[in-house]
Amino acid sequence: MHSDNRTLITKVDLGDRSYDVIVGEQILCQIGSLLRQHDLSGSVAVISNPVVIELYRETIEQSLDSQGFRSVFLTIGEGEEYKTLDTVRYLYDELLQDHIERTDTIVALGGGQIGDVAGFVAATLLRGISFVQIPTTVVAQVDAAIGGKVGVNLPMGKNLVGAFYQPRFVLADVTTLRSLPEREFNSGIAEVIKYGCIRDREFFEYLEPNLDVLVARDDSTLLHAISVSCGIKAGIVRHDEREMSGLRATLNFGHTIGHALEALTGYRHFLHGEAVATGMIAAGYMGTVVTGFPVEEFTRLEALIRRAGFTVDIGDLTNGDILDRTRMDKKAKDGQVGYVLPRHLGEVVTQTVVPDEVVSEALDYIRASI
Amino acid sequence: MHSDNRTLITKVDLGDRSYDVIVGEQILCQIGSLLRQHDLSGSVAVISNPVVIELYRETIEQSLDSQGFRSVFLTIGEGEEYKTLDTVRYLYDELLQDHIERTDTIVALGGGQIGDVAGFVAATLLRGISFVQIPTTVVAQVDAAIGGKVGVNLPMGKNLVGAFYQPRFVLADVTTLRSLPEREFNSGIAEVIKYGCIRDREFFEYLEPNLDVLVARDDSTLLHAISVSCGIKAGIVRHDEREMSGLRATLNFGHTIGHALEALTGYRHFLHGEAVATGMIAAGYMGTVVTGFPVEEFTRLEALIRRAGFTVDIGDLTNGDILDRTRMDKKAKDGQVGYVLPRHLGEVVTQTVVPDEVVSEALDYIRASI
Repeated sequence: MHSDNRTLITKVDLGDRSYDVIVGEQILCQIGSLLRQHDLSGSVAVISNPVVIELYRETIEQSLDSQGFRSVFLTIGEGEEYKTLDTVRYLYDELLQDHIERTDTIVALGGGQIGDVAGFVAATLLRGISFVQIPTTVVAQVDAAIGGKVGVNLPMGKNLVGAFYQPRFVLADVTTLRSLPEREFNSGIAEVIKYGCIRDREFFEYLEPNLDVLVARDDSTLLHAISVSCGIKAGIVRHDEREMSGLRATLNFGHTIGHALEALTGYRHFLHGEAVATGMIAAGYMGTVVTGFPVEEFTRLEALIRRAGFTVDIGDLTNGDILDRTRMDKKAKDGQVGYVLPRHLGEVVTQTVVPDEVVSEALDYIRASI
Repeated sequence: MHSDNRTLITKVDLGDRSYDVIVGEQILCQIGSLLRQHDLSGSVAVISNPVVIELYRETIEQSLDSQGFRSVFLTIGEGEEYKTLDTVRYLYDELLQDHIERTDTIVALGGGQIGDVAGFVAATLLRGISFVQIPTTVVAQVDAAIGGKVGVNLPMGKNLVGAFYQPRFVLADVTTLRSLPEREFNSGIAEVIKYGCIRDREFFEYLEPNLDVLVARDDSTLLHAISVSCGIKAGIVRHDEREMSGLRATLNFGHTIGHALEALTGYRHFLHGEAVATGMIAAGYMGTVVTGFPVEEFTRLEALIRRAGFTVDIGDLTNGDILDRTRMDKKAKDGQVGYVLPRHLGEVVTQTVVPDEVVSEALDYIRASI
């Protein structure tokens, strides 16, 4: 990672598929020159949602124009319900009608779902065309946009169709995070805290005194926190691009319970980060019973999560509902759920079997403390 | 390439995506043990068409059973009209309902269109699951099954959606070619002749005295010709996996005119190999005018093609129709068509611009000699 005028660059090192994650303040206007620096030319199709395009179209169009790119702007709905094969088919048709060719570039501008759909289209249209990510939410900047996972949902489940398709680069302008609604911004901070928990104690200990300024969206704190998070994600992806070694599975900390909560409420009640935050507290509790996670560290973990300002909540779901649902997880094998549990702040253990009573205890603990 | 009891193995050397093309007689019954040798386990979903499955299901099921694989058989229509996103969606649903998981294997059993669709499904279901090709037509064995091009058509054109996704291995049992209708078998021989023309004069000169026994489907001649063809395709793919250097473009010899003929007749009048055969004669003629392709060699090329027993034919299409259509080719740039023309038997030049009058002359020549 090196610094250059409020821009921090992290390399995702994947041999001939390596790329940079460029994190900076007000760097959206550099998109045109960055595309040129990456030897891209021709037309650029920007795929976004109607809200985000409204905010940034002018800046992006100007930057592309000034570098001689022809630009095309397409919008789709953002949200799980639009992450479908129908949206993909719509984009294929629009892009071909706009004469997008094999040597052109698709840019995803928006949250994780835009990146997932646009990335899948880029991976498959004309057998793959160049792809660039401009994530504009916290979750997308620190997680979804990095690592090449792209895809869509099927009626039978989330992310059942997709590919590993790496972008040419990721441009994360932290200034775009200022326009996020408070609930959405805060929810994303759950993923930032997650990185400290699973892999970087020092970062966790940086967040403890700095969380309030981070949540207040202080520019330089944001720049640092986003960039460190990207670096952690990049390191994990580098060592386990295709989820083979188990390292990438550490990213699922908080997600087993989190996914169950989201699925049981039809993806409407919780934002992703909120569900994950609840799942991290549950996993922390389980850790104190199963992996010897020190109670003192669990207390610090829970305190930090609660300070991020989102509601930790299970609603009226029963322990039985939640346990049943975790057994349907894509990653469960023969109904056996493998939890990611902390052993220390900064270190997790994957594939941990947890007795149902302990999971129930953890859920009761969360309910009691609401 | 090494030999072992009537089995010839060609390696497609692509680093960590390398794989073997196993060509042999009556080796379909080895599918189970070959899957094991390639460290595959779990369930195997065989995707085929109704005619082919009828012929080989028992052999394959027995072989899979004996090696402890759970097997699932799915059929789809074969032909361009079934190579669609709707078929892909149907297969996603069926495979998920049959509990196919990330660690299972999809086997394509049939012609090139089955391989294309099944391969695209394998590339994208659950972000990619293991894939094996068992081509049962000449074209699929020597061309479509090797090189990882998978995909489907859109209403706007052929192969507009797809991926480069290499199989774990290709099993080409030449015995399966015996059951092909004569017209389909002969049509495939066009692609075999093509390999001699574009890359291997010695092979062309082997075919000249051996074509009649080849067309009579003599086992050992077939084994040799298919295996040499696979070797030539493997060599091209090795050096130009993703169609970047232009080498893979040599495979389009005969295809510019060929595709135009197929498209103009709605893919109903010509079998692919028949259209390519006509295209090769046209390209040979153009070569004598443009690249200095010796007339004597053109005569040999035309003679060999005509001996393969299929009708070389343009129907009632006009030169204007054909010229217009070639300009719509996916590979045309700014309406400029780049022909692949022979310079000598065994050597072609790509991206050759040919004056319209010369293309017309070539088409007139073919018409005159019908």
